[in-house]
This record gives sequence, structure tokens and C-alpha cells, in this order.
Amino acid sequence: MNEKRRTIFFISDGTGITAETLGQSLLSQFESKVEFDRQTYPYVDTLEKAQQVRDEINHAEQRDGMPPIIFDTLVDPQVRDTVSSANGVMLDVFQTFLKPLETALMSESAYSVGRSHSVNTHRGYERRIEAVNFALDNDDGARIRYYDQADLIVIGVSRCGKTPTCLYLAMQFGIKAANYPLTEEDLDSPQLPGLLRKHKSKLFGLTIDPVRLQAIRAQRKPDSRYASSHQCHFEVNEVEAMYRREGIPHIATTDQSVEEISTQLLATTGLKRQYL
Amino acid sequence: MNEKRRTIFFISDGTGITAETLGQSLLSQFESKVEFDRQTYPYVDTLEKAQQVRDEINHAEQRDGMPPIIFDTLVDPQVRDTVSSANGVMLDVFQTFLKPLETALMSESAYSVGRSHSVNTHRGYERRIEAVNFALDNDDGARIRYYDQADLIVIGVSRCGKTPTCLYLAMQFGIKAANYPLTEEDLDSPQLPGLLRKHKSKLFGLTIDPVRLQAIRAQRKPDSRYASSHQCHFEVNEVEAMYRREGIPHIATTDQSVEEISTQLLATTGLKRQYL
Repeated sequence: MNEKRRTIFFISDGTGITAETLGQSLLSQFESKVEFDRQTYPYVDTLEKAQQVRDEINHAEQRDGMPPIIFDTLVDPQVRDTVSSANGVMLDVFQTFLKPLETALMSESAYSVGRSHSVNTHRGYERRIEAVNFALDNDDGARIRYYDQADLIVIGVSRCGKTPTCLYLAMQFGIKAANYPLTEEDLDSPQLPGLLRKHKSKLFGLTIDPVRLQAIRAQRKPDSRYASSHQCHFEVNEVEAMYRREGIPHIATTDQSVEEISTQLLATTGLKRQYL
Repeated sequence: MNEKRRTIFFISDGTGITAETLGQSLLSQFESKVEFDRQTYPYVDTLEKAQQVRDEINHAEQRDGMPPIIFDTLVDPQVRDTVSSANGVMLDVFQTFLKPLETALMSESAYSVGRSHSVNTHRGYERRIEAVNFALDNDDGARIRYYDQADLIVIGVSRCGKTPTCLYLAMQFGIKAANYPLTEEDLDSPQLPGLLRKHKSKLFGLTIDPVRLQAIRAQRKPDSRYASSHQCHFEVNEVEAMYRREGIPHIATTDQSVEEISTQLLATTGLKRQYL
């Protein structure tokens, strides 16, 4: 028995993403103190599947000598009762929050199996896919003639995190973000490239610690001028000077997750997030 | 005053993604009954920002004639108290779940401001970015020589949803997914293309309702043979026959969100999700 190692179950009748997101966020408050062994069970929407999961939980309890922790978003009462009869500690999202929410909204909730996870409407789906395609089509300065349609144009030196940021903004928020790599040539000029100047209000700059940039570039092209310390320092210095000179809002991506970069970008630009 | 229209606040000292994900999931249980006006306030980590948000909530309450609903993941007690002094109904994620979790884990939580949202470690970040780059480099059959390194190869006809699925798997789970479009030529042959046969155990098929496919293709290339009813029906029939003949696991993407497709794909293949 190891008190510092616990099994975690994320269980849902849908994708399990809500249970996972919530659970991960809560568990991060205990990191470094307890080690977690995580498992997700999506689409638990029949009694039979519920019984299987119950057996899995009991098995883990036997093995660990400690009750597993269960984060669930199950709406069917029979399914939920079956899972909750296992030897685990159950943190039930709907059970906990739906009652106070019904009271506050003076309305009954749907409580239909799987309903909770069909948040993405057809319209929402199309909007996100359209935004992802936009990000791909307008990646890395590949095309610039659609900048009129862009909600945002992310700029920065090569390998500072532009593409993942644009894709995340598209996928999560339905935002159409193009991106344009600032090259040495662009940086040598005292002015913003003309094609960017036209869209100045849409520009958002990323920057990065030059040492980190060097490490990333070296993985891609070892021993190149491109990945040299001198080149990375030069480009980052120049790009930051340009942002300041032109008054372009910008943030550093170093040590930040794509979620953090995207959230800061939204907060800085005031771009509206879509609730899809 | 409109009882069927309510203002929703997602408030966090981090990105707000946990509060949003949880809140959206709960609110979807009331959709069609109540209309929601949603707002997210990330990085509320000072007393000053907390006071601003409190004023916003009170303002919304005045305007709506009904108390707003607040989903929060605030850890700092002073910040949280300030927000909770507003005229709203507060559903507090940490307050609600951290105590039972501390008891179950026999350990105290960190409760450090912002900590809850730094789930993405450096290692996790790199793994995701690497997976996103892999998906981009191996998109649409662009390259096949890295299929050895792929966790998964998603196949299907053009515009059935392969690229967004691969990108989501990369971003969310750090899975390296290549994708390969099955063309008419591939479908005419009685056998799987040779380059796919070698990696048969990694193949996963997507399919789609031909009428829906037609609509998607028509947006891209109106009045083309590619978007014709006949062509779409032909390709979908052939591809589904191939999946059955070759025993390739597959799902239909019609009317499903990227999250749902990805979750089903993981469940069907048994591919391990990474908790990043």
C-alpha cells in the first residue's frame, strides 16, 4: 500500500472532457504531494457499462489499499447509483451543482443522458472548422490576400509559437487567426512590412526568450545559423524593438501553455471569445 | 426584466478554462429554456481586479433585474470574498470540491494563486507542440515517410473531418496522428494502397453522410464534379466497403463535434490518452 499513489477515475456518459478538465484542475492543487494514476471512461451510458466501471473501481481499491477518487458527469440516476456503489470517493459534478443552478434559474434541467456534452451545436461545429481551415490556409504567411477576413494576425519570429496559438484560438473560440513570420529581411527595415501596415489594428506580436528559441530551433535544424545564439538574440531583440516602436501589443510565450498564451492574447486585444 | 435571459460570469485567477468548461456543461442542461449572456474574466488575481468584477456583476444584476450566475475557480480567499460579496449566485469550484478532496487524499492542497491552471508542464507543452507539428507535417498525405512514428493514421475521403480531428488529438492528448486522404484512385483498387497496408494496425477510418459531404464540398468548390451528389455517394460507399472488407475500425463524423469524434476514436482504438 502506497498512500502517496492514488487512482483517479474520470467517468462520463459523454466525452468526459468536463470531468477531466475539472478533475485535472483540482488535482493540480496536490501535485508533488500525491502521485496520480488517471483513467477516463467516456460514454458510460448503460447499466452494463456502469457495472464494469464499478468493478474496475473496486479492483483499483483492492490493489491500492486506498479508495480511488471519482470525478463524474453522469446524469442517468441508475447509472450514477451503480457507479457510486463502488468503493471510491465520488465527486459528482451534476449532483453538486445542478440543484443550486435550478433554483437560481427557476427552471428544471434537462438531465438527459449525454445531453450535457452536446454543447457543440452544428453552427458551432462549422464555425470552429471554418476557423481551423482559415488558420491552416493562412499559416506562416502562406497567403495574405485573406487578411481582410482575419479577426487577428499573429506575428513573430520563426518558432515562437504562432501556429499552435492560431490553431487553439480557432478550435476553442472559433477565432480566425492568420499568422505571419517576421524574417530577417522584415526586421532589417525601419518600417513594418507594407502588407502588415494595412492591417495594423489586427496585429498581435509573440516573443520568446532567445535561449529557449535557440533550443527549439536546434531541434529542428541543429548547427545552423538559424539556430545560433547570435541569430536568435538578434531576431528577438529586433522584433521586440519593432513591437515597441510600432505600439503593437505583444506577449512572451516562454514557459506558457497554449491556453495561457491564447487567454492573455484575448485579454490584451479585447477580442470576443465565442461560446461554441 | 426578462426572467429567461441571464448573465453568466466565468471568473478565474488563471485562464478560466476550467470554469468555462464546467459552466458550459452545466448550462447546456438548461438550453432552450433560458438564454445566456456569457462573459469570461481570466487572471483576476488582485483585489483591484476583484473589485472591478464585483462592480460588473452588480451592474448586470441591476440591468437584468435578476442575479447573475458566477462560476469561479478563485483560490485566493480575499479575492474570492470580494467577488462573492456581489449580488450574484456563486458556484465555487474550489470551495466546493477541495475540502472533500483534501480529506480523501489526506493531504492539504496548494491553494496558491494561479496554481490550478499551470497544469501544463514544460514537458507537456513540448509534447503537445511536437504532436501539433507532426499533424501539420503529415497532413493530407503530404508526407508518408514518418508513418513509422505516428501513433495513428486517420484515413477517409476529402473533407470528412480528418485534419481537425488530428489537430485536436495532438493539442488535447499529445497524440501523433497523420492523415491520408483516400482518393478515387485508391478506392478503385480492390486493395488498400500499399503504403497504408504496411501500417494497417494504425489505421482509423472516418466516414460521413454523403449528403452532408456534398454540402461541405459545395462550399469549397461549388458546381464541381467533386461536390456532386453522385461523386459523394460513390466515394462514401466505396470507402465504407473498404473499411468493412479490410476490418478497419471506423466512425461517422456527421453531426459530431471534434471532441466527440476524438473521444470515440480513442475508445475504439484503445489508444492511451496523455494527461498533459
